[in-house]
Amino acid sequence: MRFSVGCRIQYDVASETTLILNVEAQRAGGQLLLGEAFDGPAGDIHEVPETGNRYRRMVLPPGSHLISYSAEVETRPFTLGDTEQVGEVPIAELPFDVLPHLAPSRYCQSDRLARFAWRQFGELPPGHERVQAICNWIFENVDYVEGSSDSTTSAYDTFTARAGVCRDFAHLGITFARALGIPARFVSAYALELVPQDFHAVFEAYLGGRWYLFDATRLCPIDGIVKIAVGRDAADTAFATYYGQLDGPPKLVTVDKLEAVRPQDWTVDAVSLSTH
Amino acid sequence: MRFSVGCRIQYDVASETTLILNVEAQRAGGQLLLGEAFDGPAGDIHEVPETGNRYRRMVLPPGSHLISYSAEVETRPFTLGDTEQVGEVPIAELPFDVLPHLAPSRYCQSDRLARFAWRQFGELPPGHERVQAICNWIFENVDYVEGSSDSTTSAYDTFTARAGVCRDFAHLGITFARALGIPARFVSAYALELVPQDFHAVFEAYLGGRWYLFDATRLCPIDGIVKIAVGRDAADTAFATYYGQLDGPPKLVTVDKLEAVRPQDWTVDAVSLSTH
Amino acid sequence: MRFSVGCRIQYDVASETTLILNVEAQRAGGQLLLGEAFDGPAGDIHEVPETGNRYRRMVLPPGSHLISYSAEVETRPFTLGDTEQVGEVPIAELPFDVLPHLAPSRYCQSDRLARFAWRQFGELPPGHERVQAICNWIFENVDYVEGSSDSTTSAYDTFTARAGVCRDFAHLGITFARALGIPARFVSAYALELVPQDFHAVFEAYLGGRWYLFDATRLCPIDGIVKIAVGRDAADTAFATYYGQLDGPPKLVTVDKLEAVRPQDWTVDAVSLSTH
Amino acid sequence: MRFSVGCRIQYDVASETTLILNVEAQRAGGQLLLGEAFDGPAGDIHEVPETGNRYRRMVLPPGSHLISYSAEVETRPFTLGDTEQVGEVPIAELPFDVLPHLAPSRYCQSDRLARFAWRQFGELPPGHERVQAICNWIFENVDYVEGSSDSTTSAYDTFTARAGVCRDFAHLGITFARALGIPARFVSAYALELVPQDFHAVFEAYLGGRWYLFDATRLCPIDGIVKIAVGRDAADTAFATYYGQLDGPPKLVTVDKLEAVRPQDWTVDAVSLSTH
Repeated sequence: MRFSVGCRIQYDVASETTLILNVEAQRAGGQLLLGEAFDGPAGDIHEVPETGNRYRRMVLPPGSHLISYSAEVETRPFTLGDTEQVGEVPIAELPFDVLPHLAPSRYCQSDRLARFAWRQFGELPPGHERVQAICNWIFENVDYVEGSSDSTTSAYDTFTARAGVCRDFAHLGITFARALGIPARFVSAYALELVPQDFHAVFEAYLGGRWYLFDATRLCPIDGIVKIAVGRDAADTAFATYYGQLDGPPKLVTVDKLEAVRPQDWTVDAVSLSTH
Repeated sequence: MRFSVGCRIQYDVASETTLILNVEAQRAGGQLLLGEAFDGPAGDIHEVPETGNRYRRMVLPPGSHLISYSAEVETRPFTLGDTEQVGEVPIAELPFDVLPHLAPSRYCQSDRLARFAWRQFGELPPGHERVQAICNWIFENVDYVEGSSDSTTSAYDTFTARAGVCRDFAHLGITFARALGIPARFVSAYALELVPQDFHAVFEAYLGGRWYLFDATRLCPIDGIVKIAVGRDAADTAFATYYGQLDGPPKLVTVDKLEAVRPQDWTVDAVSLSTH
Repeated sequence: MRFSVGCRIQYDVASETTLILNVEAQRAGGQLLLGEAFDGPAGDIHEVPETGNRYRRMVLPPGSHLISYSAEVETRPFTLGDTEQVGEVPIAELPFDVLPHLAPSRYCQSDRLARFAWRQFGELPPGHERVQAICNWIFENVDYVEGSSDSTTSAYDTFTARAGVCRDFAHLGITFARALGIPARFVSAYALELVPQDFHAVFEAYLGGRWYLFDATRLCPIDGIVKIAVGRDAADTAFATYYGQLDGPPKLVTVDKLEAVRPQDWTVDAVSLSTH
Repeated sequence: MRFSVGCRIQYDVASETTLILNVEAQRAGGQLLLGEAFDGPAGDIHEVPETGNRYRRMVLPPGSHLISYSAEVETRPFTLGDTEQVGEVPIAELPFDVLPHLAPSRYCQSDRLARFAWRQFGELPPGHERVQAICNWIFENVDYVEGSSDSTTSAYDTFTARAGVCRDFAHLGITFARALGIPARFVSAYALELVPQDFHAVFEAYLGGRWYLFDATRLCPIDGIVKIAVGRDAADTAFATYYGQLDGPPKLVTVDKLEAVRPQDWTVDAVSLSTH
């Protein structure tokens, strides 16, 4: 599928500020960049070989700075219609570089929700269907409420508050998966049909030797995802981190409309964009 | 029903310590004291008119102190076979002195679990059956595990950890009830058939103009309770509080065997021992 | 000193709502009501004998409701110029009805901050000066930042976040005092010179047989306080609690200007308005 | 300096268990392995290029399993007598692979303790001395108490509880450093003179282009450290992780006595064992 993605962000800087941006689409795995344009202050760039995350670091003097990015992306997802075929990988056979995604992280305290996870999902058949059951549980038990969480909200909080936004849904899904011994990671993304337009957050679980995408929010089709960054949780994948002083919060002017052929139906296939 | 209750506790005091005990059975409402004996250091005593809680305060010099208490108690519970008749009291009609039992407290953060409580129990018919449904949910979703909690564990923690002991079960029941607008309070008690013998914790909900007893642990028959103290939560109803320094924790030597005619079956009636 | 106090609050009710107000000035202890006027929906009223708190309960049909209250109050504080004379009362000599104010509560987890409290304040001379040292520490170590906390914020959170508003400052002061064995309680109040005009929160510590006022915010003179309610913490003393559904949050139209002879200097005396 | 290190651990396995060990000394940077021996079940091994961490994974059938490891290690630390020369690296100049060590992690919620960190340490001269000031503050304000924390305890908890063990001290040091914009990571280690003999935990801060070691516990000389693993926090660097069922917790039979020439004095130099 082919997408047009992009964003525009404005920073009003009060004193010299170092900004680390992570808004550029991945060009690894099943994502092919047909073209892209970045407009903003100069900086140094870095693409992490292991993850495909792309960072851009710049030092902003006081004043107003506008950053815009756009890209044409073609995704070639690996899909498997029969989700029952996508099983879990025994811990003893997981690649070593996948193992860190079993550990608890800042927003995903899988150690503290293990008893619930096993009680609720332990008996289910392992694999894609079990992670899908996790997503269903979250969708049915947590309300999607704008403004109900903030940057300190973790899966532990969301589990009790029973309300959150996309990043909270992803954190909770990751937490349950890890608690069950399924490696899981956070994905920041551009997403088709998201209303209002904003960055999106979903997660990937490592199953059958690949990372499969999951979205407990049901806000957009799972094959309508263009990946920006992967990491343990939102602490690793902020679209922007700054060190300095702003006059007010950054203004997300827009996430550009994604142009893509709309899938006629939401897919119920297992969808993967990367093997590592 | 007639009970023999009692306890023996040993304190090894390192430096002068003020001890406030709250182990004497209530003699208000549906509890009649036929006789009792307290053996231990002299102290001043106080019975709170509003609650019937009985405190004994003593100043212990360094050394070993043994405290023992025994009582013969007859309970005359108000029981109602048809629990459907026991409804909730609208907030607008609650006695003013019951209203504080709607507020969140140290171990019962009803404000933070409100969304879950309404999602899970909001649709159920109000009254005794709804509080019983709360108890059933707790019994089915929380494991009773000795040592899984400590004195800082609150209902918020128990809800996520899904494990606890009697006081945690009571805190969680109180929390859900308050979140739904049902006044609820903590009850420390002697309990029939509790194995191993120890103090017990249950809770009361204010329904139909009385305080009805509930026990989410299912460890003993609800008409096998002899009440010691009522309060907002365990912070109000500790069987002993001390200010000073002990050589090691107090040793609960025993809670005496309760002698009572064993009810042939566990009651499924609504059971109340007090109107205020 | 003589004060004119008052407030106006608007409720836009979506479906029938029970409202419990607690905005009327106390008329016990050192507060004399010279006159007052309440304008709003009819309701039943209750004055708690033990605390002097005054509640007004009303059932509001859908629609807009305006409530206004004004009073002329004369305070006759007990003041002691030599704060060193105001000592702590040994636990063994505290009145029994004061003891509950040593227990941790929803927003004041004195059990969890005990080690810090003893390390920081344990060596100081006991009494009024020690509680004043607590207030000084809070003022110097916690930033007063509007919007930095919400209704779920407890002293535990404020201690780590190091930011809060008046209720958070009061909760932290209460927490440290209780941890040291000094009974302490929350006070909601009208306050002289508060900018912007709003309800205020301070706390009282039980010292030398009386409840002395303390305000760690330094926002208004301590003898410029007109007490509304006392309780364990903000959970007991909300100026309004409602059960039902509003169209948006209640609008605090104003807290009326306090008219009073301005004290020439902020008092540094120990100030008390009540013995129980 | 030359060290003999080692450990013996016993696992009593109830049902087939996958064990991932991480007890082997690093052989990168300033650590030279002169010889080593591992005795235990066969497994697959992995050495992470970026960190030098060494993992050994094995599948244990039911029964008792004894694992022993010993090594001769020579450390060649980079030391700088004048700690004032070791400055902080501006965010704009940090290597990209160091940046993740600025993010909050499971046990190091640097986002939540930022205000305190800046108030307490913000004015100090940046560099090695500032991180040493962090260590001094921890040593002076947190009690080292065996049993005061468990595997769920985070820096946030330690900051309020003011008690902990070596891993808690390390987590708190990391948290403050990150909050100030100094990359910091957890180090599990063998440590000279540790009593009782056990694994140790310290931390590294990235200063002047190298990772410098810090130990807020003052339990052993900083040049008496033999590094095992580095990571974001204890979640990354557990000496053993298992998936399965044990009969009781693993028994740490011993950490072998470290044989080394004892430094005549504890060093006050800046000590580093690695550049990346």
